Amino acid sequence: MDTEATTDLRRIYAPVDEEMRLLAMFLKEELGSSQPFIWQILQHIAKFRGKQIRPALLFLTSKIGGAETTPDHVKIGAVIELIHTATLVHDDVLDEARLRRNMETVHRRWGERAAVLIGDYIYSRAFHLSTQVPGMAGILSDTTHTICEGELLQIGSRFRPDLDEATYFEIIRKKTAILYAVSCEIGGTLGGLEPDRCERLHDFGLELGMAFQIADDCLDYAGQEALVGKSLGTDLHQGKLTLPLIYLLESVSEAEARWLRGVLSAPLDPVAEARIVDLVRRHGVVPEAFARAEAFVQAGKAVLIETLNGDPGAAAVRESLDMIADYMVRRQR
Amino acid sequence: MDTEATTDLRRIYAPVDEEMRLLAMFLKEELGSSQPFIWQILQHIAKFRGKQIRPALLFLTSKIGGAETTPDHVKIGAVIELIHTATLVHDDVLDEARLRRNMETVHRRWGERAAVLIGDYIYSRAFHLSTQVPGMAGILSDTTHTICEGELLQIGSRFRPDLDEATYFEIIRKKTAILYAVSCEIGGTLGGLEPDRCERLHDFGLELGMAFQIADDCLDYAGQEALVGKSLGTDLHQGKLTLPLIYLLESVSEAEARWLRGVLSAPLDPVAEARIVDLVRRHGVVPEAFARAEAFVQAGKAVLIETLNGDPGAAAVRESLDMIADYMVRRQR
Repeated sequence: MDTEATTDLRRIYAPVDEEMRLLAMFLKEELGSSQPFIWQILQHIAKFRGKQIRPALLFLTSKIGGAETTPDHVKIGAVIELIHTATLVHDDVLDEARLRRNMETVHRRWGERAAVLIGDYIYSRAFHLSTQVPGMAGILSDTTHTICEGELLQIGSRFRPDLDEATYFEIIRKKTAILYAVSCEIGGTLGGLEPDRCERLHDFGLELGMAFQIADDCLDYAGQEALVGKSLGTDLHQGKLTLPLIYLLESVSEAEARWLRGVLSAPLDPVAEARIVDLVRRHGVVPEAFARAEAFVQAGKAVLIETLNGDPGAAAVRESLDMIADYMVRRQR
Repeated sequence: MDTEATTDLRRIYAPVDEEMRLLAMFLKEELGSSQPFIWQILQHIAKFRGKQIRPALLFLTSKIGGAETTPDHVKIGAVIELIHTATLVHDDVLDEARLRRNMETVHRRWGERAAVLIGDYIYSRAFHLSTQVPGMAGILSDTTHTICEGELLQIGSRFRPDLDEATYFEIIRKKTAILYAVSCEIGGTLGGLEPDRCERLHDFGLELGMAFQIADDCLDYAGQEALVGKSLGTDLHQGKLTLPLIYLLESVSEAEARWLRGVLSAPLDPVAEARIVDLVRRHGVVPEAFARAEAFVQAGKAVLIETLNGDPGAAAVRESLDMIADYMVRRQR
């Protein structure tokens, strides 16, 4: 993470500083075990703590109505972060990733068996915690189910060069955007907003999550491993079609498209892979996809403006929510 | 499964025939998806449907007090079977198993990525269903958490020839017996029994589950692959110490024990493996471990006799519960 982005985050999180501190304490407690072997893995996972954008969104949106933060807010913020953490741990197994935030992944260090199980361990801990706050377990288990569905759909569409933008959007809405959406929606619910306001916060989060995932997929072509802190260039290699490639197929000549569809239907050899990366650069499809992400950011901001209407707490969090929206695309460039 | 065991099961399940039929219908519905790729994997998983002993225990214990079966009973029976199914799917990834009930495992057919995710998909579906019946989500997510803990403890004690019987019992209580215990406990709860009776049903299930896992671990040394329908002899190979080996270390000479501790501290070469299998046979430690399983069965039956006291529905299910206890050890010989 570059320094500018870190400074941004500090400003964004300012209105929920105290909540983020309580979250960190809560997660430290929850990522513990009296069993040395389990404790050791959980400590390792705790070290690759991320930016915790989802709980930050929950805390920010919960303040819109001017309500006080309660321990339940912190608990559900932690549940969402734990669900996200579990998906990352399992993703790393799936992606055969070597690095996560510049650190060794769990399965590289303790093996796949431990990585799968520690993910299950964290999921079940998260679900158990969610049952302690009325009305939360149903929506959070359903959201997790949708995330898994999205990930499975993505696997099912590997080596399918006929994947269109609409299906790609459905996949990333399910695997990524839904957790942003539900974080914002639950923030509204816990903050005492009316159901239709919570629904609009859901839509706000959905737009942000779409932007985030598209930017992330662009990064797979555009980023630098050391800067980003995770293994790169894996999507193409794994037959995962993302927005830059979908745009590429629309941009190239008929002959090139035919060739592309052919080679993308099966694992790539290094020569074809290099040629595709070159086509991606020459046709400017990464900036094009980034622009699509930016459009989602703008749509999110528009929803936000409609949603915040003279609420007692809106002034304090409006700027942060606006900045988070921008951050979805900015963070990675 | 041999024919004699099948006949046994038919007799055991007779008082809950209708519930088992409703369960099958419910699971068929739940293991569905409108997405062809996901549907295909779920269909495959549905085919290796097991004996569904855990929901049968729930249905049987729920009848003790004479209460009627409601759709909630079927739903929670399905949740328990789905949790069990998800652990099997993930176990197969972990065990690198080739066969499960004489069929190809999910990860062999669709890859590890799909196997991990379909497990998560089933877990989250199960949790979501559990939130629809008041009071169930907390205990079931906590139970799942305990199962993962047990599995992790087992991984953490691989290649540890100092593993003692008490620690082995703790591991199998968590990874296996707890789900039997909670199935019986919840049966009591849904059937309207008082909390202390439900606790005793929990203990009954715990004894059964312990017996089941010990017998299963014996089978890893004693069974025949074709008969049992899953890959065998993997425990020793994976450095997993189970009861036969713990007894072996107590039975052999001091010199042999020293040699054993040495070779069991790291992956085995085929020569050492063959020698250990031979020692296991010569020292009769598999029958010894089976006898320990049998002792758990008897303890379970004793708890059952104490627990059932002139309840209106006890007469109808007593014999079945007794037979299930025996079946824990019998099924595999």
